[in-house]
Amino acid sequence: MKTYVIAVGDELLNGKILDYNSHWIAKRLTGLGFEVSGISVVPDSLEEIEGVIKRYLDKEAELIVITGGLGPTLGDITLEAVSKALERGMSVEPRTLETVRDKYRQLFEAGYVSSPEMTEDRKKMTVLPEDSTPIFNAVGVAPGIFLRHGSTRILVLPGVPSEMMYLLEMAIPLLSERTKGVVRTAELVVDVGDESALAPLFRKVMEKFPQVSIKSYPSGFGNRVMMRIIASTKADDAKEGDKILSEALEHMKSLIR
Amino acid sequence: MKTYVIAVGDELLNGKILDYNSHWIAKRLTGLGFEVSGISVVPDSLEEIEGVIKRYLDKEAELIVITGGLGPTLGDITLEAVSKALERGMSVEPRTLETVRDKYRQLFEAGYVSSPEMTEDRKKMTVLPEDSTPIFNAVGVAPGIFLRHGSTRILVLPGVPSEMMYLLEMAIPLLSERTKGVVRTAELVVDVGDESALAPLFRKVMEKFPQVSIKSYPSGFGNRVMMRIIASTKADDAKEGDKILSEALEHMKSLIR
Repeated sequence: MKTYVIAVGDELLNGKILDYNSHWIAKRLTGLGFEVSGISVVPDSLEEIEGVIKRYLDKEAELIVITGGLGPTLGDITLEAVSKALERGMSVEPRTLETVRDKYRQLFEAGYVSSPEMTEDRKKMTVLPEDSTPIFNAVGVAPGIFLRHGSTRILVLPGVPSEMMYLLEMAIPLLSERTKGVVRTAELVVDVGDESALAPLFRKVMEKFPQVSIKSYPSGFGNRVMMRIIASTKADDAKEGDKILSEALEHMKSLIR
Repeated sequence: MKTYVIAVGDELLNGKILDYNSHWIAKRLTGLGFEVSGISVVPDSLEEIEGVIKRYLDKEAELIVITGGLGPTLGDITLEAVSKALERGMSVEPRTLETVRDKYRQLFEAGYVSSPEMTEDRKKMTVLPEDSTPIFNAVGVAPGIFLRHGSTRILVLPGVPSEMMYLLEMAIPLLSERTKGVVRTAELVVDVGDESALAPLFRKVMEKFPQVSIKSYPSGFGNRVMMRIIASTKADDAKEGDKILSEALEHMKSLIR
């Protein structure tokens, strides 16, 4: 399933905060067999967020995961950008209004906030693009949002990592009519310091195993450089993929020896 | 200076490797007064890399920093994508040929590689887009590349973090006819657990200080949630920017009390 990730926030562009969310999402979804084809980090700008959503729709994304910009403050404009990109109206979602109201009541009773009242700023979090499915946020206030747009699924998650992680897990069943194939990877660490010497060997392995793609990453251990070789393939199932990779890496080893 | 960062590599999209490079580049350049307006992570695909470079050129980027895909293996196609995007030819750059040849001679003499010969794979690293300025890589083999395209500067760095960091520092003098303004930020941590209560205060501060933008980030300390408030502004110089921010945050504090 062709997947794109969008991380929203000025703080991710000015170096204040490391965008760990995109990495987490990419890792988790790759593990489930999704194919992450691009990540964009954009500022808190309506035009920029709208623009990148449209671009990924043009690229025939099957899944777009957006994180950040769902909170109650002025700068939180992700849902507005989503509704503009999809040309949908926005309105108060009754179920979300109820859960956000409950949340603030509980937070008030526990002494965390000074009033249980649904102010305009709190109400903002309940105004969703039309035909959104809210996903209940057990660890924060703003809900996650799931939408379908033609054949594209769109998942919008808060930027606070604990909330993003929780809601991503909750949303996985909604995303999981996956493509049949799975992507598998396998690794090999070899004591070859010279990456350029590997290039002809890679060509030989890929000639024999055209469905396998191989890349190398130098990893330093003190003065000694080792090469981490990562082979990946798309296969009908995990077993088949792993078999091909193990054959390809065996062949690789025999060429190195 | 309107800056975009492109990180190239399948391994950054499948969750194998965390893209720390973009964060490092964004942090370092922001600190120097550059304005990072977007980050893209793209796979090792000629079309994707070319596409994102063209898109950032269309957005009137003043600086594009690209990291990854400069090595000797098949998957390393960043320079080819750069030359396609800029419609330039590629040729062996004599100075780079010399330094790469020297490098392998030294590596051979030190026993790191098995031959000093300039194989096709090694030579690949010396084939640069026309009118490139190579930046000598003291910590690896592939040089950094600096180019100008109209009013856009383009800096291409290896993906190995130590090499990227070294070459970024080396390249800074080439990038530094900066815009006059600087971007300054200041922080305030307040004991307000309820982000929604901050929204009206932010509006008041931004009404009084229209040149200041304010955002909040919940930071948890155990059960206690504090708000990290980050104010930023663009000013003619650092002193002026810091003065405005300190006034704005003082005003913020007076509203919270």
